[in-house]
Amino acid sequence: MRCIYGVDIGGTDTKLGIVKENGEILVSGKIETRAEEGPEALSVRTLAWFDENRSSDFPITAAGVGCAGLVDSQEGQLYYSPNMPGWENVPLAGTFSDVLNVPVTIENDVNCAAYAEYRHGAGRGTRYFICMTLGTGVGGGIVLDGELFRGCHGFAGEIGHTVILVDGPPCTCGCRGCLEALIGARAIVERAEKMLRTFGDSVLNERGNFTVEDISHAAADGDGLSVAVFRETGRYLGIGICNLAHLFNPEVIAIGGGVSRAGEFILGPARETLVSCAMNERVAQVRIVPAELGNRASFLGAALLAAQGT
Amino acid sequence: MRCIYGVDIGGTDTKLGIVKENGEILVSGKIETRAEEGPEALSVRTLAWFDENRSSDFPITAAGVGCAGLVDSQEGQLYYSPNMPGWENVPLAGTFSDVLNVPVTIENDVNCAAYAEYRHGAGRGTRYFICMTLGTGVGGGIVLDGELFRGCHGFAGEIGHTVILVDGPPCTCGCRGCLEALIGARAIVERAEKMLRTFGDSVLNERGNFTVEDISHAAADGDGLSVAVFRETGRYLGIGICNLAHLFNPEVIAIGGGVSRAGEFILGPARETLVSCAMNERVAQVRIVPAELGNRASFLGAALLAAQGT
Repeated sequence: MRCIYGVDIGGTDTKLGIVKENGEILVSGKIETRAEEGPEALSVRTLAWFDENRSSDFPITAAGVGCAGLVDSQEGQLYYSPNMPGWENVPLAGTFSDVLNVPVTIENDVNCAAYAEYRHGAGRGTRYFICMTLGTGVGGGIVLDGELFRGCHGFAGEIGHTVILVDGPPCTCGCRGCLEALIGARAIVERAEKMLRTFGDSVLNERGNFTVEDISHAAADGDGLSVAVFRETGRYLGIGICNLAHLFNPEVIAIGGGVSRAGEFILGPARETLVSCAMNERVAQVRIVPAELGNRASFLGAALLAAQGT
Repeated sequence: MRCIYGVDIGGTDTKLGIVKENGEILVSGKIETRAEEGPEALSVRTLAWFDENRSSDFPITAAGVGCAGLVDSQEGQLYYSPNMPGWENVPLAGTFSDVLNVPVTIENDVNCAAYAEYRHGAGRGTRYFICMTLGTGVGGGIVLDGELFRGCHGFAGEIGHTVILVDGPPCTCGCRGCLEALIGARAIVERAEKMLRTFGDSVLNERGNFTVEDISHAAADGDGLSVAVFRETGRYLGIGICNLAHLFNPEVIAIGGGVSRAGEFILGPARETLVSCAMNERVAQVRIVPAELGNRASFLGAALLAAQGT
């Protein structure tokens, strides 16, 4: 059976895997990205890892590379990435292909994750599927009629930068009131800090600096303020999901990323908001579920997309 | 050449046309809808009009019916229409097919309009195209890779009920801050009334009740308050367009419907907002243009979709 290299370039680490055509992951691991050394250096260290970890039993026929930012998969160009300063207008597919010596498909990392979830995770069995990742950034990938949806230049699915609150809090993109500015990790921590200043009564008070994970643990331990922080966050998420339901009419929307580990503390209020805001019950029927594949989703999806392209 | 009946059922009038496969409109007109008499009575009067107006030179092979509301084109069901009280869970395709004696395709009226604009209007030559109609309601139709996009149950494209201002003004759908509640005709008139109470200086003061058309005329005559009303409206439209650009990455977004006759008074500010809010200049490259086909778009699109289905 043919195998494909899967690569997920992150700001700190690059996750790697060798994947069989049927989606089975033979081996996986990670190396440092060292963005400042540039894409060619990374591709050389990527090849070294693959050479060490591949078995000669399986021929490698392609590689898929996922990367945060604006990726033009048709042209093989990375236009811009928030995680890799200086990687602008880079012919990423060509660089990796020259070194790995196989055809290379590049794609936005969240698109990769969404495609993997569609094929082997929370979207299995659907045809119209959306995956959102909640973390520092808020990303999205969209599968329509069984195909990854890219739009005319490959930039579709930027769910995190849709505005749901005109003149709301500033977003890293320069606009205001984007979903990311309301449910990204930083916004959640700031929401907790603000509630603490007003109400005060919370186990979070005992910590100087806290993260979304700390708020999750506090909520799981019954901390009312932490539950309220996620309730408000889930409400904004629900509005964002409601917008997606009205525009795309998907069967399932899966929620992944670090923030999603808060689970039902966020997803419960999101579902309630969807039901109360949808223009009718048929639009509200979309199922909101947790993503299933964790941080292997992006390199797996990159590999599956590359397999499809060859 | 084969011909197709095109029908566009509105709350007051039903527009009718006989259309050649190549999109040429042979004849068009309208009859009263009389929603209270029900869909079968309308289909009978529709047939009478077609019988009077068709030429025996062209065989009629199909009919397309457009209708506001939630339409399941695959099942031929109209679930609900805001314009036709009581037309709920109606097998609209079957009813018209029994009477017209040809296969009937039904579709949401704005989807029909968008498809007509895509084939013969503002979307000609594109593959990824969105059409918005601005009137009492705010609707949308989406063409992706050359096909009308319906989603899993045919309800996709409800652009008017996406929320851009959480907890904003109430919308007819029961939610708050939907695009329709901010740029629908009623919202525009209310915006003008509110500005008049604050500023007062406007030719609109000389009228008791005024419409969006009156505000358009006043703006064209240089009335500053009217220009400001459209500037704010255009800003909200621009946010909505910006969201569509981030999600769908289309080539062109066309704006039609009665409100769009305000033209550049709305489209200008919408374009400025798109440029200032888009996460980068590539996303902002979508062209915002006026729709071209006017109120013939829906029956034409219904006919073209029916031709495609047969």
